[in-house]
Order: sequence, then C-alpha cells, then structure tokens
Amino acid sequence: MDKSELDIMHQRIQPFIYNTAVLTSQTINEICDANVFFKCENFQKMGAFKMRGAVNAILCLSEKQRSKGVVTHSSGNFAQALSLAAKYLKVNAFIVMPKNAPKVKKEAVRSYGGYIIESESTPRAREELAEKVRKEKGATFIHPSNDINVICGQGTAAIELLVEKPDLDYIFAPVGGGGLVAGTILASENYSTKCKVVGAEPCVVDDAFRSLQTGKIEMNNNAYTIADGLRTYLGTINFPIIKKFIHKIIRVEEEEIVKAMRLVWERMKIVIEPSSAVPVAALMKEHKEFANKSIGIILSGGNVDLKQLPF
Amino acid sequence: MDKSELDIMHQRIQPFIYNTAVLTSQTINEICDANVFFKCENFQKMGAFKMRGAVNAILCLSEKQRSKGVVTHSSGNFAQALSLAAKYLKVNAFIVMPKNAPKVKKEAVRSYGGYIIESESTPRAREELAEKVRKEKGATFIHPSNDINVICGQGTAAIELLVEKPDLDYIFAPVGGGGLVAGTILASENYSTKCKVVGAEPCVVDDAFRSLQTGKIEMNNNAYTIADGLRTYLGTINFPIIKKFIHKIIRVEEEEIVKAMRLVWERMKIVIEPSSAVPVAALMKEHKEFANKSIGIILSGGNVDLKQLPF
Repeated sequence: MDKSELDIMHQRIQPFIYNTAVLTSQTINEICDANVFFKCENFQKMGAFKMRGAVNAILCLSEKQRSKGVVTHSSGNFAQALSLAAKYLKVNAFIVMPKNAPKVKKEAVRSYGGYIIESESTPRAREELAEKVRKEKGATFIHPSNDINVICGQGTAAIELLVEKPDLDYIFAPVGGGGLVAGTILASENYSTKCKVVGAEPCVVDDAFRSLQTGKIEMNNNAYTIADGLRTYLGTINFPIIKKFIHKIIRVEEEEIVKAMRLVWERMKIVIEPSSAVPVAALMKEHKEFANKSIGIILSGGNVDLKQLPF
Repeated sequence: MDKSELDIMHQRIQPFIYNTAVLTSQTINEICDANVFFKCENFQKMGAFKMRGAVNAILCLSEKQRSKGVVTHSSGNFAQALSLAAKYLKVNAFIVMPKNAPKVKKEAVRSYGGYIIESESTPRAREELAEKVRKEKGATFIHPSNDINVICGQGTAAIELLVEKPDLDYIFAPVGGGGLVAGTILASENYSTKCKVVGAEPCVVDDAFRSLQTGKIEMNNNAYTIADGLRTYLGTINFPIIKKFIHKIIRVEEEEIVKAMRLVWERMKIVIEPSSAVPVAALMKEHKEFANKSIGIILSGGNVDLKQLPF
C-alpha cells in the first residue's frame, strides 16, 4: 500500500468514524520523561479502533459480496466493530464469539444488530465455526487482523495522529492479532520520515516477541491475560510487515498493565480497557530508552465491564 | 463584574489552568433529543473546575496577604484546588477538611502540599475551625463558593464553552455551594445574548430549589447524597446572582445520578464524579423541555475513588 491508496481509504471511511481526540498528561510526561500524545481510540465509535478496519473492509467489497453478508470470529471489539460497520452499510454480520467473552461486549454486538454464534474459546474452534458459517451463508469472511484492508483501516488512527503531531519519534501500539501494529507501521512508513513503531505485549502471551526471534508465527498456549484483546497470534499478512519494520516489542507483566490502566483512569480521567494500558505500561517500563522523545500511544479501546474492574 | 473584568481574570489564570476539551456523545444526543456539549472539567488540573476559582482568588490577593497564606474549608475538590493553586503561586494553604472526606481527596491535598486540619463533618464545625486557623495564622480565608473572585474564576469554564460554542441555548451546571452556577450565570450574561443557565441538584439536598421558593438561603439537614460535592448550601454573594438570573433548578433522585454517571462512563469513556452526573441526569429527566436545543453541560470533576464505585 502506498500513501495515495491509504489516503483514499482514509477519506472513504471518514463518514463512519471519528477523528478522535489526542490528549496529553503532565503526570505521565513527568513519569516517562517524554512528551506523550495519546490517540484516544477509546472515544472511537463502538469504543475501539477496530471500527476503522471493519468499515474499510466492508467498503472494499463488491455489491454482490455485501448482499450475502460478512462473517468473522472475534474475542470482542472486532465483533462489535463489524456489527456496527455492517449496520451503517446495510450488510448482515455473522459474529462467531467465544462463550466466555465479556458480557458487555456480547450485549453491544446484539445492540449493533450483529448475529452472535457462540463457540468454544480456542482459536481453532472459532476459526472452524466461522468457516462453517461462511459456507452456509455465502458470506465473506473478514479476519479481525490478518486482512490487508482491515490492517490499512486500523492504520488510519496513526495517520490522524501523525497529521496532528508530525514530529513524533515513536508510536507505541498494543500487539494482539497484529492488525493495529501492522497498520500503524504502514501509516508511519508513509506519513513520517523518522517515526518508528514499538509494539507492546503482555508477557504471558508474548507470541509476537517470540515470532520475531524465530522468524515464524508463534502461538500462545491460551494463557490468561487481563488484556483480553491481545490473546490472539499474528497472521501471514501482517507478520511480514511487522518483521520488516518494527523497532522492537516490549513485554509487560500483568501487574504493570493494571498499574498503568489505573494511572490513566485516575490521572487522565478516561476509561480505557486493559489492552490499551499495555503500551502505556511498556513506555513506563522502558522509558529511559525513550527519554525526551515525542511519543504517540494508541489507546486502542475503552470497552470494559464496570462491574469487573481489576482495582 | 462586567465583561472586561471577566476577560482580565480569565487571561490572568490561563497559565495555571487548562482550556479543557468539549466532547459530544451521539448516544446522549439521541436520548435527550438535543445537541449536547460537555465541558470536561474532569480533565482540569487536579481534576475539577475548582482550580479556576482557587487560582483567581489567590491572584486577587496582595503580596502581604499571600505571605501569610490562605485557609479554607472544603468537602473535597476545593481543598485540592486551593492547595495546588497555592503551590503554583508559592503560598501556604491550610485546609479544613471533614474527617469523612474521600481518602483519594485527602491524599491529593497532601500531594499538592496543602496542610490538612480535620474537622467534624457539619458545615458549622468546619466554619468555626477555619475561623480559628485564620486568626492563628493570619491567613486569608477563601470561601469555596461564596467569594466573588472564586465565583468569577469558576465562570471561566462557561466563558471558554461559549467562545467555542457561541450558539448555546442553555448551560446546565450542578448546584452545591453556588459558586459554579453563579459564575456560569455571570459568564452567560456577559458572553451570550440568549444563553440561560439551569441548575441541577440532588433531591435529598435541594436547598437551592427551596431557597428560590422562599427567597432566602435554606439549609440541608446534612442528608446523604452520592454527589458529595453538592452537600453545601448557597451563600450571601452567589444567591442574589442565582435568584436574579437562573432559568430553573431541576432536582434528581440518587438512582438517576448513578444511572447518568454510568452512562457517561460507558458511552463517553470518561471518568466523572457523581456531582458531574447531576446535570446530565437533570437534562435526561426533563429533556422534553429542551428538545432540539443546543445545551452545554459543565462536567464539574472526575475525582472518584475507584475502589468505591456505585456500580
């Protein structure tokens, strides 16, 4: 994807997304000894950046494809995103969700008009069920993170951030399935001459870190992390982009995620989900390397169950 | 106070405050059938609008007065505000706080360098102890809400809102001691030709509503409300302003406050304290009267104890 293609995609999704606010925090600047700019995708429609990729992916389909609907599997936010994007674009959305997904996310999918099909919580179970639905309905499968149009859509958050803050040295993004971080890399490569992308990942699901070491896509043993959006692994489309361009991946412990999440809630007065706190925790952990730099952080989403907070 | 005096005060406090963001919410617009603009004073320094009045009040003191310090009594946010404003301006701040004030607010006062003196939780006990401190230290007493410089300072939030959104028909503000709502009225009278101010108050501490009915300042019987910033009563300086200009006062039940607070957290992804939810609840309750209007809401603050949420 070159800049002109990204430009077209970004323009085309505008009516369906927000150009979200960029906030700063004196407290966090002092803690990290850096100038940090938070791209607030928790304020995005349906509460997460995934709206961007979902809209872009559907807009890339033909009329005929749209008439048969779309199907995906998702642990949460992409499910909501595809449902709402499909609703805006008058397309049916079939959503394969793990049974143990947060209640608030299931309710949101239903409220946006998505059809939920429950699966076991292993990645394989989800994929097989999605494939079954795809065949039965004739719907187009849209992968939450390993689809070039989804990746480009997710990258539009970083495009907006770089348009507003062109002097960024680094952008930190959480790494789950790899769609956001790959999209952020494409944006950074095309909209900045110097900005590098840093991935952030929970230690307990450090598949991306290990994938960079071994050179092939590594899996997780389905370990528990509070950052429920980051349990998945990289894909064949986003991994080459990540491998080629990423500056580094920083891994953080669960308690570092909770601490960063609480700091953002208490000092910035915004609601972020644990996955969003992962890049904040990463910067706090390795801030010495990034002293005096201008750093963007993608706060990926704000969909939390207020009855199940970790503090 | 005329517009030129307010202009000077607003300019003078600028280095010490944020011009906070104005956010919107499609969900809340739909619920209320109106265009609602939220002035996010939860993003203000120390987490509440009270920073504005505290800074302005200290800036209005002479050098000699400043050298002896300032003293106030406060159930929470003004305590933090005066402490931080005093720190910025290199003045001592003595803070009389009720023993049962939220822990998070006491810790914040200490972190900003204020000296806490604990009192019983009745308004009278607080006032008497503050007077004692004033005499002993020679400090200047600054009332949290019944001081014209504090009132004007609080009004600068509405000034900024009206500069950004000049077509507002109404601004909703919570009514506690009356400083914010009186300041909002002064701003509205001077910076808009049509905007009217609506006060919002918990039913269980509806002293302002009753004061408007009887024409004199009414008290509360110290009833419990979750909106802990609104337990106080009006003062001799702000009541005449409120009585003369206010459009109306809307009273809301405790469960309406919690419901509005949760809605703002879940849909707008921002952290607001219960007092901030009171004007949101008021608009939701009487939205038919305000259909199709442009409405500003002052979200007064975001200082909550995350371990003691009402949901």
